[in-house]
Amino acid sequence: MNSAKPASQLLSPHNVRDLLDSIEAFLFDCDGLAPTHFCLPLQIPFFLQLQCDLCHLGVIWKGDKLIDGVPETLDLLRSKGKKLVFVTNNSTKSRRQYAKKFQSLGISVNENEIFSSSFAAAMFLKVNSFPSEKKVYVIGGEGILEELQLAGFTGLGGPEDGKKIAEWKSDCLFEHDKSVGAVVVGLDPYINYYKLQYGTLCIRENPGCLFIATNRDAVGHMTDLQEWPGAGCMVAAICGSTQKEPVVVGKPSTFMMEFLLQKFDVPCSKMCMVGDRLDTDILFGQNSGCKTLLVFSGVTTESILQDPSNNIQPDYFTDKISDILKSLEHN
Amino acid sequence: MNSAKPASQLLSPHNVRDLLDSIEAFLFDCDGLAPTHFCLPLQIPFFLQLQCDLCHLGVIWKGDKLIDGVPETLDLLRSKGKKLVFVTNNSTKSRRQYAKKFQSLGISVNENEIFSSSFAAAMFLKVNSFPSEKKVYVIGGEGILEELQLAGFTGLGGPEDGKKIAEWKSDCLFEHDKSVGAVVVGLDPYINYYKLQYGTLCIRENPGCLFIATNRDAVGHMTDLQEWPGAGCMVAAICGSTQKEPVVVGKPSTFMMEFLLQKFDVPCSKMCMVGDRLDTDILFGQNSGCKTLLVFSGVTTESILQDPSNNIQPDYFTDKISDILKSLEHN
Repeated sequence: MNSAKPASQLLSPHNVRDLLDSIEAFLFDCDGLAPTHFCLPLQIPFFLQLQCDLCHLGVIWKGDKLIDGVPETLDLLRSKGKKLVFVTNNSTKSRRQYAKKFQSLGISVNENEIFSSSFAAAMFLKVNSFPSEKKVYVIGGEGILEELQLAGFTGLGGPEDGKKIAEWKSDCLFEHDKSVGAVVVGLDPYINYYKLQYGTLCIRENPGCLFIATNRDAVGHMTDLQEWPGAGCMVAAICGSTQKEPVVVGKPSTFMMEFLLQKFDVPCSKMCMVGDRLDTDILFGQNSGCKTLLVFSGVTTESILQDPSNNIQPDYFTDKISDILKSLEHN
Repeated sequence: MNSAKPASQLLSPHNVRDLLDSIEAFLFDCDGLAPTHFCLPLQIPFFLQLQCDLCHLGVIWKGDKLIDGVPETLDLLRSKGKKLVFVTNNSTKSRRQYAKKFQSLGISVNENEIFSSSFAAAMFLKVNSFPSEKKVYVIGGEGILEELQLAGFTGLGGPEDGKKIAEWKSDCLFEHDKSVGAVVVGLDPYINYYKLQYGTLCIRENPGCLFIATNRDAVGHMTDLQEWPGAGCMVAAICGSTQKEPVVVGKPSTFMMEFLLQKFDVPCSKMCMVGDRLDTDILFGQNSGCKTLLVFSGVTTESILQDPSNNIQPDYFTDKISDILKSLEHN
């Protein structure tokens, strides 16, 4: 008898009900972990094709148009009582800012449905009972500071320190706040020596100071042609000067997933991870015990999936997420 | 019969002649490799106590005064036909700039006696027949650009890119020079996202592009109280975004030493490495086959040297380098 895992199934009118009946929450993996794919500003996978703030690479929108069927598919899933979760390693925005952006694009997404690494950083401090009288120094975007504030913590640094200069003066004393008990490092387009110096001093000189990385993505796709340095670049810089390794709260760390599980009270077996990458999205879903759905609208083609060298098989695969809707209509 | 290496000897009138007779070149190790000690601007050990550009921590000067006996000791060594070499991991200045600085302090040091990691980077390209039609992108100081130019190479970047901004525009195309064949990364107080982006693109997208680090010192002492991020911070950032490891040309890489040996035509056994750190200066000297002289004017005390836990024994030790002069006078 063959006890091997069943082969992947093409999503079709014959199995779409099985998928929907067995799943309570659809998890949209909003970025690639590998150095070859993420949308830097929003880090949302290509299959969603959302017009994003900074790079205009479509995710839910393509150019100026919504991709056919995406909003209706999300609506359908909601109407069937499914929970939707958008997970992103991007820390530059807060959940509120993401929700606002989705809404401005005509897609109704509640901030409670968004799990960004900025939120994860604040939640990590919360679940670890970080003392509220301690401060948090931020190398990264406004999103981290906002999430810290919402969680009741005092953040320092961030964009405000982007224009500050670490002066090499004769007395050479660089003052830093001794009450900083954690340094959070994320993607920072305004990285400078002042911030590196501030974060380094806190980690090296403040006893017990935590070093938290939102994520360590090496680069991000701003366009199809180019990749730009990601949070992994800034995190590595602080590793280089402190010779310490950070706690990573974004993917592939399981912290965000564990937190999400507690929050939604849905077992992993009733979650479906939807993504376009085998080695990150699908593997991460499988490692967490979720069902998995691979879409071909991103970096993976059907021939890559079927290649004998590939040993990662999702439960389901299809061209794009609106095929869920189409399959149901033909059911 | 005991075949163990003889114990360290206190430098004295009884053995100073042995030292001088056996040595043709005195190598002053100008910085610590470990994260606990170097003078950031000039990276010259404390025992030289030179008043430096940026931190005013004395090395040959202390405050506004030369340390007693240092210039005379250097003069004496020269008068006895000894070669003097000043080795520094600092890349912010060129050899010409260092020599000028020494001269402004009343110490006559020829630029050919200075081996900085900026010079080492240029020499690495030279000995590896780097094509002169290719360009070199620099994350670091003016010193690297000057050494590249002197070696006949075309450098880009450096201080000039310190105020440039990598705009995240709608088309997201960041142009970089496709003829860049090497990226040199050193200590850069004006590090920014533009430079990180430029260097990353060259290394990732220009076929065969070299990634050269002047050195990887994690931090440097600007004062006795504080350490600041060193070149290791900027180098790690580029490692983080490119996921590649650099060729290191400064210490502890042996490139500079090998180059120096060729240049001076003195065998290691006739060199004496002078330094204040057991685990870097003295060990590096021993590993290279040099004689070694430890001075107590820096981070190492006599009790550290004599502690049973220490297994690094220099050939000679003394309080400060002017003891060479004193010992000879009492000879």
